[in-house]
Amino acid sequence: MHRALPVPVSVDAIAERLGGTVSGDGDRRIARLASLDAAGADAVSFLSGRRHARSARASGAAALIVSPALQDEAPEGAARILVDDPYVAYARLSQWFEALLAPVQGPASIDPGARVDTGARLGAGVAVGPGASIAAGARIGDGCRIGAGCAVGEGASIGAGSILHPNVVVYAGVTIGARAVVHAGTVIGADGFGFAPSRAGFVKIAQLGSVRIGDDVEIGANCAIDRGALDDTEIADGVKIDNLVQVGHNVRIGAHTVIAGCVGIAGSATIGARCMIGGGVGISGHIEICDGAIIGGFSLVERSVDEPGFYTGAWPLQPHVQWERTAATLKQLPRLRQRLRGLEARSGEPKDSE
Amino acid sequence: MHRALPVPVSVDAIAERLGGTVSGDGDRRIARLASLDAAGADAVSFLSGRRHARSARASGAAALIVSPALQDEAPEGAARILVDDPYVAYARLSQWFEALLAPVQGPASIDPGARVDTGARLGAGVAVGPGASIAAGARIGDGCRIGAGCAVGEGASIGAGSILHPNVVVYAGVTIGARAVVHAGTVIGADGFGFAPSRAGFVKIAQLGSVRIGDDVEIGANCAIDRGALDDTEIADGVKIDNLVQVGHNVRIGAHTVIAGCVGIAGSATIGARCMIGGGVGISGHIEICDGAIIGGFSLVERSVDEPGFYTGAWPLQPHVQWERTAATLKQLPRLRQRLRGLEARSGEPKDSE
Amino acid sequence: MHRALPVPVSVDAIAERLGGTVSGDGDRRIARLASLDAAGADAVSFLSGRRHARSARASGAAALIVSPALQDEAPEGAARILVDDPYVAYARLSQWFEALLAPVQGPASIDPGARVDTGARLGAGVAVGPGASIAAGARIGDGCRIGAGCAVGEGASIGAGSILHPNVVVYAGVTIGARAVVHAGTVIGADGFGFAPSRAGFVKIAQLGSVRIGDDVEIGANCAIDRGALDDTEIADGVKIDNLVQVGHNVRIGAHTVIAGCVGIAGSATIGARCMIGGGVGISGHIEICDGAIIGGFSLVERSVDEPGFYTGAWPLQPHVQWERTAATLKQLPRLRQRLRGLEARSGEPKDSE
Repeated sequence: MHRALPVPVSVDAIAERLGGTVSGDGDRRIARLASLDAAGADAVSFLSGRRHARSARASGAAALIVSPALQDEAPEGAARILVDDPYVAYARLSQWFEALLAPVQGPASIDPGARVDTGARLGAGVAVGPGASIAAGARIGDGCRIGAGCAVGEGASIGAGSILHPNVVVYAGVTIGARAVVHAGTVIGADGFGFAPSRAGFVKIAQLGSVRIGDDVEIGANCAIDRGALDDTEIADGVKIDNLVQVGHNVRIGAHTVIAGCVGIAGSATIGARCMIGGGVGISGHIEICDGAIIGGFSLVERSVDEPGFYTGAWPLQPHVQWERTAATLKQLPRLRQRLRGLEARSGEPKDSE
Repeated sequence: MHRALPVPVSVDAIAERLGGTVSGDGDRRIARLASLDAAGADAVSFLSGRRHARSARASGAAALIVSPALQDEAPEGAARILVDDPYVAYARLSQWFEALLAPVQGPASIDPGARVDTGARLGAGVAVGPGASIAAGARIGDGCRIGAGCAVGEGASIGAGSILHPNVVVYAGVTIGARAVVHAGTVIGADGFGFAPSRAGFVKIAQLGSVRIGDDVEIGANCAIDRGALDDTEIADGVKIDNLVQVGHNVRIGAHTVIAGCVGIAGSATIGARCMIGGGVGISGHIEICDGAIIGGFSLVERSVDEPGFYTGAWPLQPHVQWERTAATLKQLPRLRQRLRGLEARSGEPKDSE
Repeated sequence: MHRALPVPVSVDAIAERLGGTVSGDGDRRIARLASLDAAGADAVSFLSGRRHARSARASGAAALIVSPALQDEAPEGAARILVDDPYVAYARLSQWFEALLAPVQGPASIDPGARVDTGARLGAGVAVGPGASIAAGARIGDGCRIGAGCAVGEGASIGAGSILHPNVVVYAGVTIGARAVVHAGTVIGADGFGFAPSRAGFVKIAQLGSVRIGDDVEIGANCAIDRGALDDTEIADGVKIDNLVQVGHNVRIGAHTVIAGCVGIAGSATIGARCMIGGGVGISGHIEICDGAIIGGFSLVERSVDEPGFYTGAWPLQPHVQWERTAATLKQLPRLRQRLRGLEARSGEPKDSE
């Protein structure tokens, strides 16, 4: 659990911040935001749905953020902060607590151990960490924080208010919008994977395109987002990408799409807006996924998805011995179907409409 | 699209460069290399196969690289550059344009913020970026470019003309051949994953082997290529590896094999020459894949592959509700087969040769 | 193969180190530890099980570490070092040889190119590499080695004897126990992936929790281990994690569990103690895997596993053309089962107990 706020806040102050109303003791002092199970007498928690009602009633929380419909599920004696959407309220409150917990920082500064090229343009209030390098022609917007060990290439552009955590690499010419968060170790703009086979071996296709990333995009740790071959790789506004995700060259990802960890997206795939891509999914190259599609974790999308909906494809876990048997039988599946047909024909079964 | 060449080149100059012949106006000035759909009046494009013929005829390109067989598919009025293999020609041209687009660089230099040990040997014309470190006994060949934040360990050796993009880590003793390209964040030579179980817990097996990489190898971003336990991990000449690929200890990869993104290769697997391994593939340890095998994306290779050919194994995507039904039935597949056999026996069906 | 020891050691000295007994010439000089196939007249090798007996007999090794039960499988003329568990003995010997092979190092030191905040506390004998940064409030235990380009955030704590290889990032507040080994490029403590959907788009959930890692943990290269949302992500003592593994927020991993490469663990999953998780496995969020479970490579664990045992789920590799047929038939599997039932009903088959 996070450490206590240096100066606790009142239930009333939290409610005011969230635009909610208080039922109970608004003067109680709150020093932590905690899950229902972990919350103690100095903590506020939240109830986001009926299936957590039992945990809510048993919680030791001093205050509960809850919707009017579920307010009777609060633990006895706890103050209630009534809001329309407790989960969104929790998200907002987490941001406030994070700010209250942050160490007081001096004015933003360029670490003496950073190397900022004289040809780079930095906005107001930019912080650059030790060991970071910013090349000629790069533009860093107001209030950006460039972490230790980051490398920003020539002519790259990063919008105002963006945060690069340590050791992020932004290749030359890449464009990132405002308020981006890029976690440590992520690489944006490496060469797409393109080689022309010839008798003399593979000939590298220089990747002349770049990467263009919109506003309010968050990218997790150790991802790899490749630059385009001729056109650009594009990630639209509001996209959220988890850790260890590969985005191939010339991929396009629509606005507000969410991509979980360990996903691999092959070159020139197009993913619509407001999609949800589960963890470990593979997306083949040159296909399209329409707006609003949901892909279950660990699935391979090898053809275009034209209709919104929830799609999945993954072998269900089995005891290993059973799996061996099932896998062996699977290989005979087309033959089994033929045999079934043969039996049906002999038994005078009406022909199946397959 | 990439920015225009600072000084456009003529169609004739391009044809000369590619060893092709011009049909049409060889004097037209070309400032960009573009896809058929994006090409405008300042651009050259290419037609690599008949299935793109419609796009070619509708293209706004000023000039088209095309094979003699397809030259009638060029857009009206466009100059044609006739070559045997337009895709290889495109690759060569992309390299030329990349060079023309590159900012004019001063002589190669060691950044004052780099730390090169006095016991390291650097060839002529080596560039070392800010924050990079090169340890004692390391050898860096002529013309290498070591990016910002790279760490090259003791006794490691990197062949002439190689490029390490920023934040690459090369552990002690690793050998890389000439003209390598290693993208940002990749780690070469970390310990293989070896622990001996004992009553007192796991005992680490020190990884005494190393990694040996041939000439003309390209490795994508954020890969991990482990050193061997006793013998070396080996990657032969001309191998191309995409992003986020794991190569376990003592793996051997044959010449000119191509490995797409997010592939995991377990320890002591051997992959032949000229194989193509699709994205997201898993390869089990201690197996062999013969020369020339092609593994479809997202497949698990759990046994040796002895015959060249195209192999696949992955659940096809389904609407989630149908998937749930299919997955449940799958677990009964061996039982279904038994029931089918029973029916056949009763109906006097000749015994299937399974 | 690793280079020869600068000063060879005798068979007797090796046996003494391993607590074994020598049969044969204990004076022979050994300069290398090698696999059975690669071992020459200056090498010791080991035989870990009967299935390698043939290789053992044909080995050129000068000495063989072997159990009493298999001592007759040693190559002719080779000295035998008899131990109870040759594989554990090999692991111990590899560590000794590694120490003998290591270059003689001067006293541990803080590289002048490292940036250690005056508010950080470093134990005795800590080494910090060039370009590394250690923030205010961080505590680094005695004898730690912090590699080049590492970034250790505010208030993070690293136990005595730990090694961070180059370019590891440890976010603020993360706690790592004693004797940890973290390979290059790994990121510990980046934000978990949490966003609350609202009408105005996603609202980021600040990740107020942290990461707590026990003693004797090893983590491979380019992993990503996220901090918790409210509570901490927890990795218990003795856990071993291979490369490119994603550990989501609030995941808990029990003691001495081993996780192979390319595994993705979604948020709030709980994995028991002494589990073995194969390469490329996906583990869904909010599920539990009991102590002692073994998950075969490339499987998806989408539900809790309550019984120890060996579980697998993955499509077996097929020639592509056969796979296409099998995959097409698979989608009809529930329908095939219905048809089978129909046939059974008509043939007067007793109703299956499904």
